[in-house]
Amino acid sequence: MIRSPKKMFIPGPTEVHPDVLTAMTHYQIGHRTQEMRDLVKRVKPGLRTLFGTRGDVFLSTSSATCVMEGALTNLVKTKLLALECGAWSQKWADTAQPNGIALERQIVPWGKAHDPDDVRKALKTGAYDTVTLVWCETSTGVLNPLADIAKVVREFDDVMLCVDAVSALAAVPIDVDALGIDVCLAGTQKAMAMPPGLGVFSCSERALKRAASKPQRGYYMDFLQFKKNGDNDETPSTPTTAHIFALEAALGRIHGETMEKRAERHRRMAKLTQDWAREHLAIFSDPAHLSPSVTCIANAGKIDVDAFAKQLDARGFILGDGYGKLKNTTFRIGHFGEHTVDDVTRLLAAMTEAL
Amino acid sequence: MIRSPKKMFIPGPTEVHPDVLTAMTHYQIGHRTQEMRDLVKRVKPGLRTLFGTRGDVFLSTSSATCVMEGALTNLVKTKLLALECGAWSQKWADTAQPNGIALERQIVPWGKAHDPDDVRKALKTGAYDTVTLVWCETSTGVLNPLADIAKVVREFDDVMLCVDAVSALAAVPIDVDALGIDVCLAGTQKAMAMPPGLGVFSCSERALKRAASKPQRGYYMDFLQFKKNGDNDETPSTPTTAHIFALEAALGRIHGETMEKRAERHRRMAKLTQDWAREHLAIFSDPAHLSPSVTCIANAGKIDVDAFAKQLDARGFILGDGYGKLKNTTFRIGHFGEHTVDDVTRLLAAMTEAL
Repeated sequence: MIRSPKKMFIPGPTEVHPDVLTAMTHYQIGHRTQEMRDLVKRVKPGLRTLFGTRGDVFLSTSSATCVMEGALTNLVKTKLLALECGAWSQKWADTAQPNGIALERQIVPWGKAHDPDDVRKALKTGAYDTVTLVWCETSTGVLNPLADIAKVVREFDDVMLCVDAVSALAAVPIDVDALGIDVCLAGTQKAMAMPPGLGVFSCSERALKRAASKPQRGYYMDFLQFKKNGDNDETPSTPTTAHIFALEAALGRIHGETMEKRAERHRRMAKLTQDWAREHLAIFSDPAHLSPSVTCIANAGKIDVDAFAKQLDARGFILGDGYGKLKNTTFRIGHFGEHTVDDVTRLLAAMTEAL
Repeated sequence: MIRSPKKMFIPGPTEVHPDVLTAMTHYQIGHRTQEMRDLVKRVKPGLRTLFGTRGDVFLSTSSATCVMEGALTNLVKTKLLALECGAWSQKWADTAQPNGIALERQIVPWGKAHDPDDVRKALKTGAYDTVTLVWCETSTGVLNPLADIAKVVREFDDVMLCVDAVSALAAVPIDVDALGIDVCLAGTQKAMAMPPGLGVFSCSERALKRAASKPQRGYYMDFLQFKKNGDNDETPSTPTTAHIFALEAALGRIHGETMEKRAERHRRMAKLTQDWAREHLAIFSDPAHLSPSVTCIANAGKIDVDAFAKQLDARGFILGDGYGKLKNTTFRIGHFGEHTVDDVTRLLAAMTEAL
């Protein structure tokens, strides 16, 4: 195992516990064997608890982007309402067009959260059968008001709600069943603290029914094949078995800590980071909607972001760039997964020193 | 590292060398960093040599099925000619319909190889702009006459040739450029002897040009995005970095042995297995087209396949089931990747004992 000489605070990938890495070196097993079905059976309950669902949870050998695209090809029949507040929600909308899916973007400025009332207004037109939302927008550090938006979408019986929970899952508790979310997806290299390469998602019965009514929903991400194989504790295609062993280890760590304590730890790490930012520079995003897992700090005209990151690097800490158009005016800290309050305290001390 | 108590001879996944497994535990790196670009830059030459191309080679965070589907969504504009001689070539054809792609299947019985003259006849109709071929059909142990079929396809300027090389790549030499193959793809859990979860593929300039003329080619597998990011030694989406570190180690082993010696080793392992089958039972597939990496053995009415596999299991060897409709009348041996002639000799001795 080659360990990093530096502590990584970019908003994913993130530090992975040695036990999780070691799980990736498990000997190979055939994916149509009882050993594989036993493994899948072992990870399902922990994954269900994490998503807050008693329904279906699936494993996708891909990054989350592939699952995002799959949600659209499986579910959108008339038109998509794409809620867009940053780079990742924009990416979700971007996956529609190359699949011939009609969409309308409801755009709020980067750093802002979506307004449930605006969502209701749009849905009332009756034009949309699916809504996409990024819960924690990693590019801006905004945590959208998921519960309020979900409540609005559920006022409309036949509208599917698809939620990208990539950088919030395992940092913030979620109850997919109570919220009535149809597809909730995540990559595993964020707050779940696994290496990248596995997508996980929940899928409602309503979503499977919609998929069944759509003949051309793609092949690799055909949700009905996930369901059919999943019922047998298998995956439709050859899975990244190493990641599933790692998932077992990661879920053990997550539920060993308990989601309640984990959420509290993430809140504390976020608060320390936000306090530092307010004192020394500024927070980029709407103060009413700050994410407990990612903080986007504005340079406030006081520092050269690139030079600052280099200084931190020299002190053994890797910060995240500002994303896209925010590259030179912000930087980001992913305080999630395996990071502790002490780690964040040390990071912030080094940041103060570097100022 | 948890080692297997048994030696696995199923036709993928297969035994992975400890150095390759250990590479998966490398510390996490951001995928938009110089460290990542350096890694991608290091694996490209070895991958190019493996495919026999000076053109583009790409890394897909998915199993090979996703790349198969991607080849079709990127390339087929009029109609696909799907050459079908077993379960995997059938699967390739199956990915067309859920994407609204028109196709005709040219089917030969399981165990037979495709006839280049029949391919020419079909292409002369002018109805097809793409051909799919599985080089080594893992379900039947047939190695199709790739060079002859490629020659025929290249008689037709604007027809794309897509080749699934999954269970032959790194066991049988291939020269993608000389053969004029447009997309050559593989999973890495077969003769490359890596854990499953990474797809690799070559892509011709002609293929990229075709893709550019097709507006709806999907998002995750958009070949133009692979090209754009690949030119910068990056991947379009978050990659399974652990697998790319493993790929570096695996390519080191492959080219360290040299492809020439590796091919010879696979030929010897295949010959031993074929000789055993002829002496004790029978070979299922056309003797003129036997694969050097997978042998499909017919029970010849002499053994109960299931009971035989159990006896071998008790002796520490895992055999591959017959695939699909061949389940009870055949079994398969994947003699590839890290297996040695001595390993195969021991396996065959145990098989004789079990008879």
